[in-house]
Amino acid sequence: MDLELITIGTELLLGFVIDTNAADLARALASVGARVVRRSTVADDGPAIEREVRDALARTGFVVATGGLGPTRDDITKKVVAGIFDAPFELDREYLDVLRQRFERMGRGPMPEVNRTQAEIPRGAAVLPNRWGTAPGLWLEGPLGVVVLLPGVPREMRGLLEHELLPRLKARTGGDRARPVILSRTLRTTGTSESALAELLGPAEDRITPVTLAYLPSVAGVDLRLTSWSRPESEGTAALEAAVATLRPALGSHLYGEDEADLAAVVLAALAERGSKLAVAESCTGGMLSARITAIPGASRIFLGGVVAYHNDVKLRELEVPLDLLAEHGAVSGPVAEAMARGVGRRYAADASVAITGIAGPDGGTPEKPVGTVWLAARLGDTVRLTKVIYPFGREDVRARSAQAGLDLLRRLLQAA
Amino acid sequence: MDLELITIGTELLLGFVIDTNAADLARALASVGARVVRRSTVADDGPAIEREVRDALARTGFVVATGGLGPTRDDITKKVVAGIFDAPFELDREYLDVLRQRFERMGRGPMPEVNRTQAEIPRGAAVLPNRWGTAPGLWLEGPLGVVVLLPGVPREMRGLLEHELLPRLKARTGGDRARPVILSRTLRTTGTSESALAELLGPAEDRITPVTLAYLPSVAGVDLRLTSWSRPESEGTAALEAAVATLRPALGSHLYGEDEADLAAVVLAALAERGSKLAVAESCTGGMLSARITAIPGASRIFLGGVVAYHNDVKLRELEVPLDLLAEHGAVSGPVAEAMARGVGRRYAADASVAITGIAGPDGGTPEKPVGTVWLAARLGDTVRLTKVIYPFGREDVRARSAQAGLDLLRRLLQAA
Repeated sequence: MDLELITIGTELLLGFVIDTNAADLARALASVGARVVRRSTVADDGPAIEREVRDALARTGFVVATGGLGPTRDDITKKVVAGIFDAPFELDREYLDVLRQRFERMGRGPMPEVNRTQAEIPRGAAVLPNRWGTAPGLWLEGPLGVVVLLPGVPREMRGLLEHELLPRLKARTGGDRARPVILSRTLRTTGTSESALAELLGPAEDRITPVTLAYLPSVAGVDLRLTSWSRPESEGTAALEAAVATLRPALGSHLYGEDEADLAAVVLAALAERGSKLAVAESCTGGMLSARITAIPGASRIFLGGVVAYHNDVKLRELEVPLDLLAEHGAVSGPVAEAMARGVGRRYAADASVAITGIAGPDGGTPEKPVGTVWLAARLGDTVRLTKVIYPFGREDVRARSAQAGLDLLRRLLQAA
Repeated sequence: MDLELITIGTELLLGFVIDTNAADLARALASVGARVVRRSTVADDGPAIEREVRDALARTGFVVATGGLGPTRDDITKKVVAGIFDAPFELDREYLDVLRQRFERMGRGPMPEVNRTQAEIPRGAAVLPNRWGTAPGLWLEGPLGVVVLLPGVPREMRGLLEHELLPRLKARTGGDRARPVILSRTLRTTGTSESALAELLGPAEDRITPVTLAYLPSVAGVDLRLTSWSRPESEGTAALEAAVATLRPALGSHLYGEDEADLAAVVLAALAERGSKLAVAESCTGGMLSARITAIPGASRIFLGGVVAYHNDVKLRELEVPLDLLAEHGAVSGPVAEAMARGVGRRYAADASVAITGIAGPDGGTPEKPVGTVWLAARLGDTVRLTKVIYPFGREDVRARSAQAGLDLLRRLLQAA
């Protein structure tokens, strides 16, 4: 079943508000076999809404729209769509009572008169009760097709989606296990580029059809999303499993996990297996590496702590980096990264450690060490691995990529141990 | 000038990726008087992209599209749009050299052959150089109108938007000073609630019309957005200035800045003015406070470093928190927060410090100290301010709000000093 999404709101269109409803809806609808084939956003403007809804109905006959159901002047979605269905408004006295009671229960005094319009329902429309706010959802159906109206407030939209829209769509498509659904899995890689992965996987890509492969690069690395399109659930699951089995060998050590896997959690799990404790020393990442690690619930069982050694005095005193190393090689160098990793390991009595020192910019670069130059060290017992990278995309990017690369260096060292 | 946005990507359409580009583009375009009248999202699908671009051109004659410019098989935007403009591809040898050099500079070995397609340019198109990635932006213009293609990676899109697209649009719209534009300003507050602000500002709200006021709560506090809608630039600027002057006195010390102001930058600036140096000690925020501070370019002139004291041993040894304080009051307590602030100040020779200790969850809560309990300390010389907060919305939220609250405590202490 194909459908279109329309999100309505001037604030959305102008970019003052990020549209999270469209993504939430698309994912949930795909899970019950309803495929979003197009989505659009228009202002709170009668003619624009009418044209958009009519065009979408003409194409797919099924539209889900959010926004513009509130009680204020700029909320006109319901009126416009009722017009398309030639449905006059009728006051739903039962819903009006529900609304009045809700206002009283919340201790907000009597219901303001403007909210009365929210109990006016287009004739023939099914009311989708909203327990999370005042605007009911509506399901309108006629010769042109179906239009479902949901409120724009994300919390209310998600409530109606889960408790009203999805059950109705499931009932509509029946308990049909042969119903086509969209399924996907993600293979997460880091430490290599999109194009290098494409060269590795190119030949295999033909062997996974009809599963498709998308490359999603970010500061965390490159995610590979495998998608099975519109097939029965059991077939799709099997096709994805086969595709993963085909691609996995080619990825080798670049692969660190699947779906929502976090590299920090992967590293913590590997350390927990060995009974190892971790400490970190950071210069240019300035706490981001520690923050990544401590974002994982239960990190305190493995992570002892860290030193943010921003000033060189801190590297000297708190990490015991020898002054002559700093003088000879500079703070951004392999020897200093190694000394930082060993220093924090000694001070914090940690058998594993990671150290990062680099030039995040915008200032501080030299011809030999341009902005973006970062030295990373990972240590496990007496073994230290060092690597140098150059990230060209600015302070925020350098810092985020360095934290991920530091974790990756330790992951690879743990794998080899 | 009206235009339409099209964001292209199957991942966007399916909701696997949240579309932030559309909002970033719309806000930036409004600031130069280009009004987004409609936006839509389609899959990486030739016929769907072609229909969408043709329809949008027929309506407004000006389209900005993002996504589908990468080197892999699913990146087909350039090909489809070149087809609409009847423009055959030509290899841009100069750009090919730029690409090759970039790969070498990044130490990633020779450029993979797939990236060669990114140097193939539709005849007659203007190349918008991409310094943040490998896919160039393109400006195609013909009898049907203008199509601007930008990469979908947000960092690259924003770079091209700022440095290429906006200057070209400004040049195009010329110096028409009567052109209606949408302008907005944001007043940033923290340390108080949305409803408390609404009570403070309620009476003033009528006095700022036609400027509108929106409350935007987040982990950073509550932003107040003031917007002037579709008026000439000089009129809108004056109306916003008057509205800011009306609201500002009611906000008092809750106001910490305007627009993109970051509380960490505000605190660093106040410290710089006094010639003070800063160090921090973190437990539950685990590096987030340091990361917030070091995200600000130039932080190294004021920020010396920090200790992430996750394990109690680190609090004892590295921050010199007395064992009896830990035993008597527990790690999450006012006396320990104060000792952490004083300890890191001594160790790092910093005249200002912030310490945070709390229970981020999901485990570790007790009836007396539930999950979300956080003690904060700010220190300036010998003066220490302590505060306790309880944040009910889970680990990530507790950590982010605690880092912001720690900065705010020091800001208020500096203001009083």
